Amino acid sequence: MKTVGVIGASGAVGREIVRQLELRAFPLEELRLFASEKSLGKTLPFKSESILLEKLDFAALQDLDLAFFCAGSSVSREWIPKAKGFVIDSSSAFRSEFPLIIPEINAHAIGNSRAIASPNCTATVLLMTLFKLHRLFKAKRIVASTYQAASGGGAALLQHLEEETRAHLEGRPHPPLFPFPYAFNVYPHNSSLLPSGYVEEEMKLADETRKILEDPNIQVSATCVRVPVLRAHSISANVEFHRPFRIEEIYEALEGVEGLAVFEDRRLNRFATPAEAVGKNDIFCGRFRIDPSQPNTLEFWAVGDQLLKGAALNAVQIGELLLRG
Amino acid sequence: MKTVGVIGASGAVGREIVRQLELRAFPLEELRLFASEKSLGKTLPFKSESILLEKLDFAALQDLDLAFFCAGSSVSREWIPKAKGFVIDSSSAFRSEFPLIIPEINAHAIGNSRAIASPNCTATVLLMTLFKLHRLFKAKRIVASTYQAASGGGAALLQHLEEETRAHLEGRPHPPLFPFPYAFNVYPHNSSLLPSGYVEEEMKLADETRKILEDPNIQVSATCVRVPVLRAHSISANVEFHRPFRIEEIYEALEGVEGLAVFEDRRLNRFATPAEAVGKNDIFCGRFRIDPSQPNTLEFWAVGDQLLKGAALNAVQIGELLLRG
Repeated sequence: MKTVGVIGASGAVGREIVRQLELRAFPLEELRLFASEKSLGKTLPFKSESILLEKLDFAALQDLDLAFFCAGSSVSREWIPKAKGFVIDSSSAFRSEFPLIIPEINAHAIGNSRAIASPNCTATVLLMTLFKLHRLFKAKRIVASTYQAASGGGAALLQHLEEETRAHLEGRPHPPLFPFPYAFNVYPHNSSLLPSGYVEEEMKLADETRKILEDPNIQVSATCVRVPVLRAHSISANVEFHRPFRIEEIYEALEGVEGLAVFEDRRLNRFATPAEAVGKNDIFCGRFRIDPSQPNTLEFWAVGDQLLKGAALNAVQIGELLLRG
Repeated sequence: MKTVGVIGASGAVGREIVRQLELRAFPLEELRLFASEKSLGKTLPFKSESILLEKLDFAALQDLDLAFFCAGSSVSREWIPKAKGFVIDSSSAFRSEFPLIIPEINAHAIGNSRAIASPNCTATVLLMTLFKLHRLFKAKRIVASTYQAASGGGAALLQHLEEETRAHLEGRPHPPLFPFPYAFNVYPHNSSLLPSGYVEEEMKLADETRKILEDPNIQVSATCVRVPVLRAHSISANVEFHRPFRIEEIYEALEGVEGLAVFEDRRLNRFATPAEAVGKNDIFCGRFRIDPSQPNTLEFWAVGDQLLKGAALNAVQIGELLLRG
């Protein structure tokens, strides 16, 4: 890829994509960074350079051999149809149209596509833990509750959480973002509420699970909740399988799965927490236990850095797959 | 009740029991407060008095017509068998032996007992929402994930959360309580891990649900998680019933249930959060939705002040029932 662009480079995911391109020595000749009005003129560091944030326009887009889109769905919807080169979209705009890829799981689904979508961050945490088990025991129904970090709502939400928490501790008033505080509080995910009573975020988890695991029959019921955590998501999942399993088979199955680490020490009653997942490429999973309330059912807990495997790392890994052709 | 005692009065629940006895004008002639060594000599306010914290001994216990125990399981196990008057135990020590009471749900189960247990705080949040639905549609299986506040771990954990968060924001080191931070973090509940892979807290939710709903066949699989919230617990529950229902029947059933409030505004995508439940006697519930992944299945969200209905308020309400005889 001669020229690579990041659209939405000043956001939480965009900055992390730039960092990953450097860390992983992504082969590119030129990196161009695009941002919205308010960030124009600023620069971001890349290797030894300082790269100026530009405004995206049609001509610039034509120059890009590969464009990472992470500026939200409306920017993706406006610009991706006009792109000439390869596109990797971190937004949810085209997740049902484009191949939706987690490289460890379904790289083959890229086919000849030049435009690829990267999944919802919570779906990635769930599916990295589940895909191997699905292949062995065939998932039937998933009930999941999430513990989602501020970073999933963007850099502004992350900053708000810190500032509101500081104000709370100092007894100062702080203008809230919502009709309730976020400091020391949790709230049901505030994506659009659908007539069914589920929110969009919950339907993403369901739809993306079926698409990535390539099984339209998997049933999913999710409850998505934002917690006052900075940048790693957790999920509690109860999964019914078609086929029976022993708990030892679960641990055996997950041994050596790339990008996944079983993080637990039962003797010490120690399992992964979001703070420990921050900055790590792996998804951490554990607390696997047979749910005795129903046949062939497993409970588990999984945690992952929302900005890494949940977003930027996965997007850059897709870029690496495209390079290989 | 002439003489009422609170054992564990300096703790988070104990202080709230003292406050509830005053607020609710609990009829008593004398209030005696007991605490551990480190709090002796201190006083707590009650009405216009300052009551000295005493050390519990056999003689003092014999003077009590009613004793509230909230100093943890080991104190309950040591002293409750020696009590002469009525006992209300907020610990888990005797929950399987004593009638386990949520006054709105199973007051009749007190019978002639003079020693009553008050349930686990998370079980109370779940069951206050569920009991009426269970009577109508008969619960079959519950999958629940919790979002538990610091107060459930006692006053020290609550203080630790605030101090560690302050240190984190100021970039100061702070001695952690665990091998991971609690500030801006969540962690699987650290009660004892059982060979099954569930922790004790999760089994309490299961056992207490069956006991309070008086149905040994209800299946429960729970995941308990501590979140950085100060004093209200939340729970996400997926409940399969034996009988079919329409969503309107759910809302109709919950109308007017004492101690329970449906808190939601679907037009504004607004549901209860822990911060809004703090200081409220009611359990707040909402986000009721049909889970399409399985017949007769309902998802919902419930929140309650852990120190009020989750502990102190429920204990004092049990005391009020005992008064009525």
